[in-house]
Amino acid sequence: MQTIRFPDKTTWNTLLQRPVMDTSTLEQKVNNILQDVRCNGDEAIRKYAAEFDKVMLTDLQVPAAAFAEAEATLEPALKAAIQQAAKNIETFHRAQQEKVQMIETMPGVQCWRKPVAIQKVGLYIPGGSAPLFSTILMLGIPAMIAGCKEIVLCTPSLHPAILYTAQLIGIEKVFTIGGVQAIAAMAFGTETVPQVYKIFGPGNQYVTCAKQLVNKSGVAIDMPAGPSEVAVLADDTCVPDFVAADLLSQAEHGPDSQVVLVTTSEKVITDVENALNAQLDKLPRKGIATAALENSKMILVKDMQTAIDMLNAYAPEHLILACKGAENLADKVTDAGSVFMGNYTPESAGDYASGTNHTLPTNGYARAYSGVSLDSFVKKITFQQITPQGLQNIGATIEAMAAAEGLEAHKNAVTVRLQAISANK
Amino acid sequence: MQTIRFPDKTTWNTLLQRPVMDTSTLEQKVNNILQDVRCNGDEAIRKYAAEFDKVMLTDLQVPAAAFAEAEATLEPALKAAIQQAAKNIETFHRAQQEKVQMIETMPGVQCWRKPVAIQKVGLYIPGGSAPLFSTILMLGIPAMIAGCKEIVLCTPSLHPAILYTAQLIGIEKVFTIGGVQAIAAMAFGTETVPQVYKIFGPGNQYVTCAKQLVNKSGVAIDMPAGPSEVAVLADDTCVPDFVAADLLSQAEHGPDSQVVLVTTSEKVITDVENALNAQLDKLPRKGIATAALENSKMILVKDMQTAIDMLNAYAPEHLILACKGAENLADKVTDAGSVFMGNYTPESAGDYASGTNHTLPTNGYARAYSGVSLDSFVKKITFQQITPQGLQNIGATIEAMAAAEGLEAHKNAVTVRLQAISANK
Repeated sequence: MQTIRFPDKTTWNTLLQRPVMDTSTLEQKVNNILQDVRCNGDEAIRKYAAEFDKVMLTDLQVPAAAFAEAEATLEPALKAAIQQAAKNIETFHRAQQEKVQMIETMPGVQCWRKPVAIQKVGLYIPGGSAPLFSTILMLGIPAMIAGCKEIVLCTPSLHPAILYTAQLIGIEKVFTIGGVQAIAAMAFGTETVPQVYKIFGPGNQYVTCAKQLVNKSGVAIDMPAGPSEVAVLADDTCVPDFVAADLLSQAEHGPDSQVVLVTTSEKVITDVENALNAQLDKLPRKGIATAALENSKMILVKDMQTAIDMLNAYAPEHLILACKGAENLADKVTDAGSVFMGNYTPESAGDYASGTNHTLPTNGYARAYSGVSLDSFVKKITFQQITPQGLQNIGATIEAMAAAEGLEAHKNAVTVRLQAISANK
Repeated sequence: MQTIRFPDKTTWNTLLQRPVMDTSTLEQKVNNILQDVRCNGDEAIRKYAAEFDKVMLTDLQVPAAAFAEAEATLEPALKAAIQQAAKNIETFHRAQQEKVQMIETMPGVQCWRKPVAIQKVGLYIPGGSAPLFSTILMLGIPAMIAGCKEIVLCTPSLHPAILYTAQLIGIEKVFTIGGVQAIAAMAFGTETVPQVYKIFGPGNQYVTCAKQLVNKSGVAIDMPAGPSEVAVLADDTCVPDFVAADLLSQAEHGPDSQVVLVTTSEKVITDVENALNAQLDKLPRKGIATAALENSKMILVKDMQTAIDMLNAYAPEHLILACKGAENLADKVTDAGSVFMGNYTPESAGDYASGTNHTLPTNGYARAYSGVSLDSFVKKITFQQITPQGLQNIGATIEAMAAAEGLEAHKNAVTVRLQAISANK
């Protein structure tokens, strides 16, 4: 890791710049696949599975028997862990349910807002080295709580933990489709795969590009994606071994992961660096973590206020406060995806099991975007109902404003009604 | 309006298709302006104002004195109307504030979620024939309630009602900049205009294209935009004069506005058509409304269930239920931006003054997007704090899942802490 001491505020932006993701070179290639699947459906999906994944797909949908088999295969301890995580995630997301509040803004003018499930959603779980069954919990559980009518899951991985988790939370439509083809299938629908209104889930740069392109054509997506990142704010009360472990748990995600340590203590830098080196040697994903650490930074600042200002400017996906008075510092956080407070709150708790969602805004998007939550699976539809008396109360206001905006028909929609009310009296 | 009777379900999609907006031909032109403002700041803004709007801008920021002058100019009745609308909008949006709920998902594992204002937001209000001061209320009031630290308003219109409304709700930074230049100024910042994290507001196809392009480069936007639209569901209990007035209040927005009437009654079609023709003649914006009506449809269906199914498939921005049992029907609405119930609830009430927001998803986006609300101006940041005892409760779950996903460093972030807890006992 590079160490930077007391950087001037004017350099913060450059110092904390993320690697620029340029998907424009992929766009043509990805768009061709999207359009092919749009026109040729399942046949195109099979073609690309053979071409890219060297897989001959017969049935695209995972048969019911496969779920029972997965359940029988999986270790009981892992099943218990997935169940416990599911329970915590459900508890946290169920608490996000909103009661409908009737608001009478004027006598006879009633307005309210009701969360209604997005009727059809698609979840994408990538294949690759790690079977991300935890992401099925993070996306599937709020989709179920929201009441989405159709939940489609596409994944190239038929790892037993993937199938077990899908079944546990009640997702029945699982398709063994990966990559750009999967995004296309859910965005446009095929003979086998239902079309959905919103697509969630992580993926490589091709999948990310595909999500951006279908978003332009009207399908909603969870959020723009970038490499995962963590920032740790540590003072002398931190435990260097814990900080090093947290930095490494981010670094092992990928060579483009971002890891930042901000501290007020020179000693923390030395101690964390030593702990990092000791732990790194034992990791199976040492190569990946080493590459990520090469682009990563330890930054020494003069005081906590400077640290918080710098971290808010960075707007990290994950922020760990490994310092005294974490509660007070947390109040000053204005820009972060998720915050982990104190020495015994590792980021991996939120990644898997504490209950919060692990699908979070990367790449500085935390300045304006929230992580996935129950909100991500509903629309909040507003309703209003006005009585004749209510319209008499509010009518003149509407008429005056509509007239001043030069929209006479808007005004007239009130006037004809007020005239009818008067005539009926 | 075209009349279609008992269309087969397979034809609904085609029948209710929106005009396709293709901004790709504009993209190069819009992008050039964006990049010019990004590089050359205020100088580029002045250049485009001279070129496109034939305006020589000296001061970009509206001086404080102009607000007082606007207030003195404006009719008292209009000021009172704006104040009343502001009060209702504030009441409705303030009720959307969320209390922070501490959730203990397991003993010693505390998680919560806190809405935090997006620190810097930009509002765009277009010029053109109608001074859209109502949109300042709809965007500025929730921004104020959320507590956004910097609220920037760009508009080419210095209509007194615009300045009065901005001042009324406390927006101080108003810049007399329009079009693509305004979006560029707020997205990238200039010598005079502060950079923001999220941009809100309507605009023509150039502005819409500019918002899409800056969104790709990392600035959030309120929502994708399309021409405004209304669908009215009417039965024999409707008042044809009211329905006609509502259809026209949508049609006068622009020649590309969408107006749809769905009814179970042949008589309603005849009566509404007659009322439309009678009212249309008296409208100052008759030309625009006539053009919009040419693309619009009256659809006769066999029963209310078919009507609701069709309307959910269409997912209109505005849905008026001018029929008996509007409450029961409202419960069946799964896809709409905002719903207006009963004969005395014109859409223009929600456009101006009832309290609900008028920035709503068009173009079928209501399937997956909500209208603007307080939520649009905050991020919901999750927090968690785990005690040593709590980590002992949840630790094995995290370890098992991380190991199964092949992420040993994630597991180790828990293991090092559990070992330290055991060692300290």
